[in-house]
Amino acid sequence: MNAEIINIGNELLLGDTLNTNAQYLSQKLTELAIQVNYHTTVSDDEEKLLQLLNISQQRSDIIILTGGLGPTPDDLTKETLTKFLNKKLILHHPTLNKIKKYFQKIKFQMPSVNKKQAYFPENSIILENQNGTAPGCIIEEQNRIFVVLPGPPRELIPMFENVINFLKKKIKGPRLYVRQLKCLGLGESAIAEKIKKFLNLTNPYIATYAKQDCILIKIMYRSESEKKALPAINSFKKKIKKILGNIVFTDDDKNIEDVVAELLISKNETIAIAESCTGGLVTSKLVNYPGISKVLVEAVVVYSNISKIRRLGVKEKTIIKHGAVSKQTAKEMALGIKNTASADIGISITGIAGPAGGSKTKPVGLVYFGLAIQNKVFTYKYIFNGNRQTIRQRAALTILNILRLHLLEAN
Amino acid sequence: MNAEIINIGNELLLGDTLNTNAQYLSQKLTELAIQVNYHTTVSDDEEKLLQLLNISQQRSDIIILTGGLGPTPDDLTKETLTKFLNKKLILHHPTLNKIKKYFQKIKFQMPSVNKKQAYFPENSIILENQNGTAPGCIIEEQNRIFVVLPGPPRELIPMFENVINFLKKKIKGPRLYVRQLKCLGLGESAIAEKIKKFLNLTNPYIATYAKQDCILIKIMYRSESEKKALPAINSFKKKIKKILGNIVFTDDDKNIEDVVAELLISKNETIAIAESCTGGLVTSKLVNYPGISKVLVEAVVVYSNISKIRRLGVKEKTIIKHGAVSKQTAKEMALGIKNTASADIGISITGIAGPAGGSKTKPVGLVYFGLAIQNKVFTYKYIFNGNRQTIRQRAALTILNILRLHLLEAN
Repeated sequence: MNAEIINIGNELLLGDTLNTNAQYLSQKLTELAIQVNYHTTVSDDEEKLLQLLNISQQRSDIIILTGGLGPTPDDLTKETLTKFLNKKLILHHPTLNKIKKYFQKIKFQMPSVNKKQAYFPENSIILENQNGTAPGCIIEEQNRIFVVLPGPPRELIPMFENVINFLKKKIKGPRLYVRQLKCLGLGESAIAEKIKKFLNLTNPYIATYAKQDCILIKIMYRSESEKKALPAINSFKKKIKKILGNIVFTDDDKNIEDVVAELLISKNETIAIAESCTGGLVTSKLVNYPGISKVLVEAVVVYSNISKIRRLGVKEKTIIKHGAVSKQTAKEMALGIKNTASADIGISITGIAGPAGGSKTKPVGLVYFGLAIQNKVFTYKYIFNGNRQTIRQRAALTILNILRLHLLEAN
Repeated sequence: MNAEIINIGNELLLGDTLNTNAQYLSQKLTELAIQVNYHTTVSDDEEKLLQLLNISQQRSDIIILTGGLGPTPDDLTKETLTKFLNKKLILHHPTLNKIKKYFQKIKFQMPSVNKKQAYFPENSIILENQNGTAPGCIIEEQNRIFVVLPGPPRELIPMFENVINFLKKKIKGPRLYVRQLKCLGLGESAIAEKIKKFLNLTNPYIATYAKQDCILIKIMYRSESEKKALPAINSFKKKIKKILGNIVFTDDDKNIEDVVAELLISKNETIAIAESCTGGLVTSKLVNYPGISKVLVEAVVVYSNISKIRRLGVKEKTIIKHGAVSKQTAKEMALGIKNTASADIGISITGIAGPAGGSKTKPVGLVYFGLAIQNKVFTYKYIFNGNRQTIRQRAALTILNILRLHLLEAN
């Protein structure tokens, strides 16, 4: 089966809103082994939408429309589709009651315009909206499936779960099962090189993607049943993990900070952080993890030299002799934060994020990391490419990954 | 004039890549008063692209194609467009030399496949690529303008600057001039209420948008010339600013952290920050600003009670009596960081970001802020809606805005 997605809304064509729905729906349809052939964005305009529906009906089995379900006259998706299908709009009383109750709850009288949202093309399956007043619907007609969804992602995403269940019953033939591995510590091309023998397969189809916070490896397996697919996927996961080893940090949907936080908590190791160029980014990532308070004692952003000296006990002569961005300073920072915070682990980051401040011997992108653990201190030197934000982001991911590897080793 | 955007790439239809190019190009075309009527995403498939070009040519003056300019055989955008236009592909020697030089620089021999990237439809205007090996091109044919651009945004965006200059010469009739104001301190509906008399106009067309880091007010003015447009826009800017006052933090493209950093630097006021629930997010935002090192002395993330006591001198009895999330603790944190860092200003944030840790009297979302400046300490209490990440983000924006208002007052 194939599908296309039609996103309706002037705000998309003006560039005011980023179209994330097309990506989300494509991912979900791909997982159902439904091939998405087109995304089209069109304005809230009856004539243009009718023309487009005419084209779409000739080329796609499933047509998903998003947006244009609001209460105002310029919201015309359901009305236009009804016209296109030569159907009638019918008032759905249970939906009208729900909208009325919604307004009672927030102590407003339902504006009369909202009644419009309770009308649907005849013979629709109605999709309840748990997060707003605009329900969606499904219409089957002439071997085509039309799905109408609201525009806001927080309304569309939960509603689409019901559409997935509906589509699963309609799909004949194999489905696509997708699992993933996330990596840090090597670049995309180096990872692709190591696992290149898997990258030419067709089933499973395995591909690598450079994402902002990891290298993603997707394993996509086309199969009649989950029972057959999952063992096959798992065997490939195992093979890839065996080759890549600790470079894989999760085969789940977790971020690096989640993995590190869980390791710290499970080992009951407390941590303290001294950041210079990353300016709180490492700490801020770890604090994304609820429950981090069990192990995160404190962090300092020692942006000035005086702060490095006063807060952490870095020696003034170390900074004078080697510079604030040096192996020696990173080492003293890591030790200093570990000791002053009485934590089990101290980590430090000092570098040149740019755009100014670089030199020939210490270029923009140079970052030193320190890690004090038990009675040892390790230091690391990296040179990152990119602008100020990219360098800081890469530095934060790198020290979290270094910490993860140390925590794993300590097993 | 009207336009449509065609994005070519399987990775978009699989949902692996978010299509940000369509939004970027739409914004830029809208500013040129070119109406964007369609975005279409299609796979790297000659037949489908030919069909689509046939439809597009009938409905649009300008057709912008992105993606499919790589060196591999499945990259076929230029080839398909050439076929569609009944033209020939011609080798462009200066481009070939540039690609060769690019490979010399990184000390690789040019792979033979890359020669493909130096071919263009005859009579093309070639668009140099400063950030990759795939140049773009412009072709004028039968009163239509075709623009071919590479897919990666960091290559497409700089290249499109030249397309803008080209299009400016082609545009007849009025253009759309867009300027903006960014606000913090009031919600979107409250701002819309205050300026509602401006929201029904057609020229300028003024609209509000709730963005992640501000409420954006866009002023869009259709005019024959910049000379006429800018005074009109500026007069509306003035009127809106007069109504909203300090709620407007910039009429530029700056973020709140840029505005705060510039105020601190221009007033030569040093700052130190004590974060609890925001976990380094406030500091990390400020460190986005290059040059912040002039005024940012240090920051601490005092996530544990012991750290609040030891690092900042918060009294143990204050925490026992009022709790770590309280006005009193926020006050002592702000004073403590100001004094221990010897900074001119100390700010503090302590709150409950959730999902756990809330109670009836202290719900998730409760955040106290402290601001110690000169010999005064101010405290603020807010309750934010949303999940852990949203609460932390809103808290960070709020304290930066509070700081901005204090710095303005001190004038």
